[in-house]
Amino acid sequence: MLEHELVFALREIALLGGILGDVELSSSELGGILGISQQTASRRILELEEAGYIQRKPGVKKQLIHVTESGSERIKAEKEKYERIFEMGSRMRFSGTVISGMGEGRYYISQPGYTLHFRSALGFEPYPGTFNMQLNGAELNKLNILRNREGYTIPEFSTGDRTFGSVRFFRAEISGEPCGVVLPLRGHHKGVLEVIAGENMRQKLNLRDGDEARLTVFLDR
Amino acid sequence: MLEHELVFALREIALLGGILGDVELSSSELGGILGISQQTASRRILELEEAGYIQRKPGVKKQLIHVTESGSERIKAEKEKYERIFEMGSRMRFSGTVISGMGEGRYYISQPGYTLHFRSALGFEPYPGTFNMQLNGAELNKLNILRNREGYTIPEFSTGDRTFGSVRFFRAEISGEPCGVVLPLRGHHKGVLEVIAGENMRQKLNLRDGDEARLTVFLDR
Repeated sequence: MLEHELVFALREIALLGGILGDVELSSSELGGILGISQQTASRRILELEEAGYIQRKPGVKKQLIHVTESGSERIKAEKEKYERIFEMGSRMRFSGTVISGMGEGRYYISQPGYTLHFRSALGFEPYPGTFNMQLNGAELNKLNILRNREGYTIPEFSTGDRTFGSVRFFRAEISGEPCGVVLPLRGHHKGVLEVIAGENMRQKLNLRDGDEARLTVFLDR
Repeated sequence: MLEHELVFALREIALLGGILGDVELSSSELGGILGISQQTASRRILELEEAGYIQRKPGVKKQLIHVTESGSERIKAEKEKYERIFEMGSRMRFSGTVISGMGEGRYYISQPGYTLHFRSALGFEPYPGTFNMQLNGAELNKLNILRNREGYTIPEFSTGDRTFGSVRFFRAEISGEPCGVVLPLRGHHKGVLEVIAGENMRQKLNLRDGDEARLTVFLDR
C-alpha cells in the first residue's frame, strides 16, 4: 500500500469533519467515497490507525473516527506540496546529495569581483568555500529552469592573471539559514548546485557526503 | 485506474517544474518518484496525456513533458480541497440532493419572530419558502458538527396560537448566492438542510428534485 493511498483516505475523512471531531463512518461508506471495495476500505482504516493518523472507537451503528494531531500534520504537509507548485514562479525547492567540491569554490568566492556582489545581495560576508549538492535524475530539470531565470547577474571581470566568467546568482535558504546559489553562465553544468553562505554549512547543519539536503531558491531578486 | 492516482502523478510532474515548462522525464524516473514500476509509470503518462493534463514531445534522450492549462486547473482544484480542511473551523461545504419540502418552510419563514432575525442577519427579505437538501451517508456527520456550533440562535417565541421553537441559523452561500441555513434545535433531524434565500433557489439555479447541490456554510457569525 502506497503512502499517497493512505493520505488520500485520510483527506476524505478529514473533509467529512474528522479534523474537528468524531465522524460516524462505515467502511462501505468510506469505500464509496474512495472508489474502492468495502474490504479494501476496511483495511485502509486499520492502516490509518496503525500509522497513527486516526483514532477510532465503536459507535452506535458505525465506528467513530477522528483525525489525530499527527494525521492533521500529515495533511498539512500534503497541502503545502500543492501550494509549492503555484509558488514555483517565485521559489523552488531542490533536493540533492551533499558532495565534496574540488576546493575551487574557495578560490572563486575569495575573488573581490564576486565577493562584493554576494555581500550586497546577501547582506553578510560569505564563508570562503561552497557547499555542494549533487542533483539527480528528474531533479536536474529544476536546474534548467533556474538557468533560464534572471536572478542577479554578476558580470565577467578580469584580474591581472585571468578572466572570471559571468555568473548568475539567487538568494536561497537551507534549513532556515540564508544562503545563495551560484550558477556559472558558460560551460556545461554537472548537475551540482553551488551554495554560498555566511558559515561552513556542512559543519553548521552537521551534514556529510551522501546525506540528503533540501534547499529553497528564491527566484525574485 | 483511479482519478487520484492520476492527480498524484500530475502533481509530481508539476513539482519537477512541469507547471513552468518542459520537464525531461523518463518513465523509469517517474516510476521511481511515484513508487511504481516503469511500465505502470509509462501507462500513467499516457493516461495523463489522454486526460489532457499534460502534453509531451520527444526530447534528446527522454521525453519532454509539460502540464497543460487543464492540468494546472486540476491541481488547483486538488489544492483547494486540502485548504478546505483547514478552513472547516470557519466554513464547511455540504453536498446533498435537492428534495421537495412539505410546504412547511413557507409557513415558518413567514412568522415575524423568525423573519426579523433572518432579515437582520442576511441583509435581505427571505423568499417565503425553503430550499431543501437531503444529506446522505457520511455527509450527515457534517450536520452534527453544525448542530454543535454557535451560529445565530433565534429564541423560542409565541404567537396567539402556538409556540415556535428555538432555531440555530448560519449564513451560507450556494452557487455564489448568499443564503442561510436553519436548524431546529429540538427534535430529531432527518438529515435535511433547510436553506432560506432572497429568491426561489430552485428556479434561480434551475434545480430539480434529485439534482446535486453544493452549499458552503459560514460558521462564524
